[in-house]
Amino acid sequence: MGASTITELSKLCIHTITTKPWPLEQAVEKYSKKGIKGISVWRQWLDENVPEASGKLLRDAGMDVVSLVRGGFFPGRTAEERQKAIDDNKKALDEAAAIGAPSVVLVCGAVPGQALTESRKQITDGIASVLDHATGVNVKLSIEPLHPMYADTRSAVNTLKQANDMCDALSSPFVGVAVDAYHLWWDPDLQQEIERCGKSGYLFAFHICDWMSPTVDILNDRGLMGEGCINVREIRGWVEDTGFDGYNEVEIFSNRWWEKDQDEFLEAIVSGYLQHS
Amino acid sequence: MGASTITELSKLCIHTITTKPWPLEQAVEKYSKKGIKGISVWRQWLDENVPEASGKLLRDAGMDVVSLVRGGFFPGRTAEERQKAIDDNKKALDEAAAIGAPSVVLVCGAVPGQALTESRKQITDGIASVLDHATGVNVKLSIEPLHPMYADTRSAVNTLKQANDMCDALSSPFVGVAVDAYHLWWDPDLQQEIERCGKSGYLFAFHICDWMSPTVDILNDRGLMGEGCINVREIRGWVEDTGFDGYNEVEIFSNRWWEKDQDEFLEAIVSGYLQHS
Repeated sequence: MGASTITELSKLCIHTITTKPWPLEQAVEKYSKKGIKGISVWRQWLDENVPEASGKLLRDAGMDVVSLVRGGFFPGRTAEERQKAIDDNKKALDEAAAIGAPSVVLVCGAVPGQALTESRKQITDGIASVLDHATGVNVKLSIEPLHPMYADTRSAVNTLKQANDMCDALSSPFVGVAVDAYHLWWDPDLQQEIERCGKSGYLFAFHICDWMSPTVDILNDRGLMGEGCINVREIRGWVEDTGFDGYNEVEIFSNRWWEKDQDEFLEAIVSGYLQHS
Repeated sequence: MGASTITELSKLCIHTITTKPWPLEQAVEKYSKKGIKGISVWRQWLDENVPEASGKLLRDAGMDVVSLVRGGFFPGRTAEERQKAIDDNKKALDEAAAIGAPSVVLVCGAVPGQALTESRKQITDGIASVLDHATGVNVKLSIEPLHPMYADTRSAVNTLKQANDMCDALSSPFVGVAVDAYHLWWDPDLQQEIERCGKSGYLFAFHICDWMSPTVDILNDRGLMGEGCINVREIRGWVEDTGFDGYNEVEIFSNRWWEKDQDEFLEAIVSGYLQHS
């Protein structure tokens, strides 16, 4: 079918890290003024001891909390490290429940020098270990496959096929996938794996931004939609063709944009979203 | 079976770009003194007007020329651009013949913003267009799948599966693959695709280096074997299990190493090769 042009902001969600200089209260105020009600909250933006307070702030402003970001980092060299990760993921699930986030995004983790096959096993085991807790607090887990350039330290899950396979293996309505165009745009199997992801009921979230040419920083040089080479609209079409009607989440890490006036950046996000997403 | 330890240098090949500060004559002299006879020559190292002169230099020193690097860059927005690439690839094939290189490595190319599917088609068409020329000069073409972080500008071929599929489609004894551990180590299908590559007769070349954590430059921060997290020895085992008995080609782009004394670097290459490859 292909995606139609976006003409309004009802499906726009912004990750708090996108406008990094703004604390939660300011982000909520600024997004609201623009008519943006979707927000994905990074854990650093929460009052760690009282996530309920952050939850009240979000509810009072009428925000729709899309995800808590981020859990994961399950692999570890020792059983102690892995248990620590499991405990932290349970805490993240509690925080998500406290702020009304229906899901926690998982950056699954990797250990430099540890075999990727071993890390992948530890990830599957780690998710399995927190599933009861997730069910108990009624918060889902979204596996986010990360770009292969993060396979050393951030995620041993690097394609949508792997994430889908992992969901098959875990077989729980509480485990799904966050599809991020930045991580996956290059994948020759992307369209078919998005279709599979949707059909299987795994498609929990959709993240967008753009790929800069050249990319001058491997972590913090993401582009705003329209600045780079990603076929964001086409990918959104594939996602929507599965019946997905969730938010389009703008998640941009950019030293360049963070240095600018964030009000101007927010204007640019809205404009880039309408013209290039 | 798995790879055994390397105890001598008969299968060691170095790419001239690895020791970038050395012109061809010096590289040949330095490698020879260490007992290294494998060399892959980047085109910038050739006397462009008289590649035969570079060929004589290499032959007189008893070097074994493994590859000419690099052809490719087939995709283009216009037919003129694409024809220019085809002409340049024919020139590269002639240069390879002139220096006694049995193959040309292809960095296949990509155009930012052009659909990857279109670029992939243009790559297949481009290779097909130079096949007669390759056969005529008896020089093979090695498709090198590049890491997905280069899908914007350098190569729309980003997995070994794609390269193998492309070889299937082109179906010529003059078209095969250069497997580079740096580009492919993260791929969950790597072992099986190496096996397929070998069985199909496509495995023309094997490149090694390492992945730095963190990687501070997306192009020129490759590590020496042992400095990073790539399972180089295991991957070499997979390659050798196919019956491959060609060179292990050290191809490192590193601002950090290029700034150092190149004699020390060459020592480190030999040591890293013996201990970590």
